Amino acid sequence: MRGGNARRTVASRRGGVIFRPMTDIAPASASAKDYPVLRLQAGRHKRAQHGHPWVYSNEVQMDTAAKALPAGSIVRVLDAGGGFLGLATFNPHTLIACRFLSRDPAVRVDAGFFAARIRRALEIRERLFDRPFYRLVHAESDGLPALIVDRYGDTVVVQANTVAMDARLPEILEALDTVLAPRAIVLRNDSAARSYEGLPEEVRVAKGEVSGLIPVEENGATFFADLSGGQKTGWFFDQRDNRSFIANLCRGRRTIDFYTYTGGFGVLAAARGAAHVTLVDRSQAALDIALKAAAANGCADRVEARKADAFHELEKLVAEGQRWEVVICDPPAFVKSRKDLAVGSRAYRKMTKAAARLTAPGGMLLVASCSHNMEPPLFHQEVARGVAEAGRDSRILRFAGAGPDHPVHPLLPETQYLKAMVLALD
Amino acid sequence: MRGGNARRTVASRRGGVIFRPMTDIAPASASAKDYPVLRLQAGRHKRAQHGHPWVYSNEVQMDTAAKALPAGSIVRVLDAGGGFLGLATFNPHTLIACRFLSRDPAVRVDAGFFAARIRRALEIRERLFDRPFYRLVHAESDGLPALIVDRYGDTVVVQANTVAMDARLPEILEALDTVLAPRAIVLRNDSAARSYEGLPEEVRVAKGEVSGLIPVEENGATFFADLSGGQKTGWFFDQRDNRSFIANLCRGRRTIDFYTYTGGFGVLAAARGAAHVTLVDRSQAALDIALKAAAANGCADRVEARKADAFHELEKLVAEGQRWEVVICDPPAFVKSRKDLAVGSRAYRKMTKAAARLTAPGGMLLVASCSHNMEPPLFHQEVARGVAEAGRDSRILRFAGAGPDHPVHPLLPETQYLKAMVLALD
Repeated sequence: MRGGNARRTVASRRGGVIFRPMTDIAPASASAKDYPVLRLQAGRHKRAQHGHPWVYSNEVQMDTAAKALPAGSIVRVLDAGGGFLGLATFNPHTLIACRFLSRDPAVRVDAGFFAARIRRALEIRERLFDRPFYRLVHAESDGLPALIVDRYGDTVVVQANTVAMDARLPEILEALDTVLAPRAIVLRNDSAARSYEGLPEEVRVAKGEVSGLIPVEENGATFFADLSGGQKTGWFFDQRDNRSFIANLCRGRRTIDFYTYTGGFGVLAAARGAAHVTLVDRSQAALDIALKAAAANGCADRVEARKADAFHELEKLVAEGQRWEVVICDPPAFVKSRKDLAVGSRAYRKMTKAAARLTAPGGMLLVASCSHNMEPPLFHQEVARGVAEAGRDSRILRFAGAGPDHPVHPLLPETQYLKAMVLALD
Repeated sequence: MRGGNARRTVASRRGGVIFRPMTDIAPASASAKDYPVLRLQAGRHKRAQHGHPWVYSNEVQMDTAAKALPAGSIVRVLDAGGGFLGLATFNPHTLIACRFLSRDPAVRVDAGFFAARIRRALEIRERLFDRPFYRLVHAESDGLPALIVDRYGDTVVVQANTVAMDARLPEILEALDTVLAPRAIVLRNDSAARSYEGLPEEVRVAKGEVSGLIPVEENGATFFADLSGGQKTGWFFDQRDNRSFIANLCRGRRTIDFYTYTGGFGVLAAARGAAHVTLVDRSQAALDIALKAAAANGCADRVEARKADAFHELEKLVAEGQRWEVVICDPPAFVKSRKDLAVGSRAYRKMTKAAARLTAPGGMLLVASCSHNMEPPLFHQEVARGVAEAGRDSRILRFAGAGPDHPVHPLLPETQYLKAMVLALD
């Protein structure tokens, strides 16, 4: 299914990480006892023993043998005394050195292993959703570290964010075929996370054909995703419930949706009866997709698209003294890494302040952040300050994260990256 | 509407707080300039200036004049330089000395003031809900510090948790009549919060007649509340959305609901198609109300009530090796005060561990905490540990608080007291 290993040499060095070819990785059909051993330092096994899915590089006995293991190897992780902790993927060059795959020493990490994990993830989604549009596999939380699978009906989009998962894409695609038999599979391997692992960017169709826009059914409305050209995997399923919540508050109201992308918030608001919706995005291509969705839902007459930088347009409208009854701001991450935290936090505050000033008395405001480096209490604080600086009294009606198809691993609470807050302003 | 001040003398000393009669409080019709002045200490005005709704007692210039102000007075709060900060209720004997009512120096705190606040709170609820069953006023978050109003159709339940609000119940009831004209009003003044203010317990009908059970419409089903004998104000509206979420996961499944009270979780699960639901509560009166709800929703044949201490029954069933496909645990607060935090936290962990053991492979578990002294990250941690100690792999599908009729004041994030977590167990 894949074009061999040739493309890997493209990124021999990316992001300061030396990339090694993976030709000497143990074959997927190896039984557990064949996987090489990796030992932890004395006393560093407790977190893993309690079920934490990661081991950090400074907790590993990084001896010559460990250093010689190719990035992407599957290893048997032992504590300093030789006790078995689990099977994990290993990368000696990254801060997160091991990501556990299983605590069962008899497991073989092959297509059958992946199929079992995908089947369990599917079972949960089928219990949660009536229609087959969701994140099917959410990495560690679904027992498949660093693997993302989004489902759009009979098309799936796959993203492998570690060397280990990238190397096992053949087995993963085989497993997807076994469980779902999708008509088409798109590899959307162009995430920032991959560059930390020294992996190349790659977007390609691994099975079937994908051309043009794919329909997405969400919240009882129809949208469209560009699976090869769009952001992330083409659609942000994580905001499903937040979109539904605010859309219900838009009925009969003038609404403005900044950073609208392909219309998940704004077009749903119109479909649910908003009096008028202004969509703001700097991408005409995204706006065109949003307008197509508006037409599909029979509300194009109440939707207007405005091509502009969202932050700039927001400040311009505030300066003009304009007011909207509902204001929605779901920007891309302002905090892309820890070092951006101070600047990015201020940006959320500034955005909230402007958006609050744009919100009419008695109006509603939704602000969101997908910056995973910004924890919910900090986002809460910056939003509260922004609204206070705008001189507005408010109450928080909702403070939520991603929907249930983006589960959180109990021992990785920090992976709750999405934050959406809805405020009623006086 | 109220029976004068006679009942106040009942609690001349409660919870270590000296209670003073309020005969010398300025009348409600006073204009702002007639309210006595209270000054803050130098430099202690900033939080208030940024919109925080409270001033702590150690931030006030507690001079002879301040100490002489009766508990429950309305005061003009000034900074040390004489700048106006707002109108607030005042109690010289409590940690929270001032609770702001308005930042407008011209406001008069009379029935018209309360009517405007209640009207705004109602407008938000009518936008959120189709049916008139919700928390109508949620204290500080709705600009009415320490006042709770729950709405059950044309009956409302009122709880005043400070001396100041208690003293203004006549104006509050007048305002409720103006805005809602309810058929009946119940005063449910028996909260723990009142004892800290030196207020007596009192449950009585202030308007109309209330006899027997009141129907509650929630999540498309019918329940019943005992407005005079039940817990809190008779129904816990805060769990509405969490009930709906888990009920959808119960379809066709054997479900057990511990601490079921009057059936908000368990009966909804049955109404939405659970194969069988076992309700566990130590109160036969509560179980009888739940069974009446099951009958009203046509699912009594799939509901069984078991009178038992929930924690004891949970551990007994675990010891017997029993398993359920969905397990629900929404207990009363285990952490009633800060000093209980260590013991109470362990109780949540222990409950979660037992409940996880009771959950069948592939099953779902809901655990909740309404302990406001336990912040969400600590609850998350104890639940994660409990599940790990039970030896179960899991993912968190939902971690939510109270519904939107329990809004959070932006500057009081700590008032997000409710935490409900839904886990899918492998």
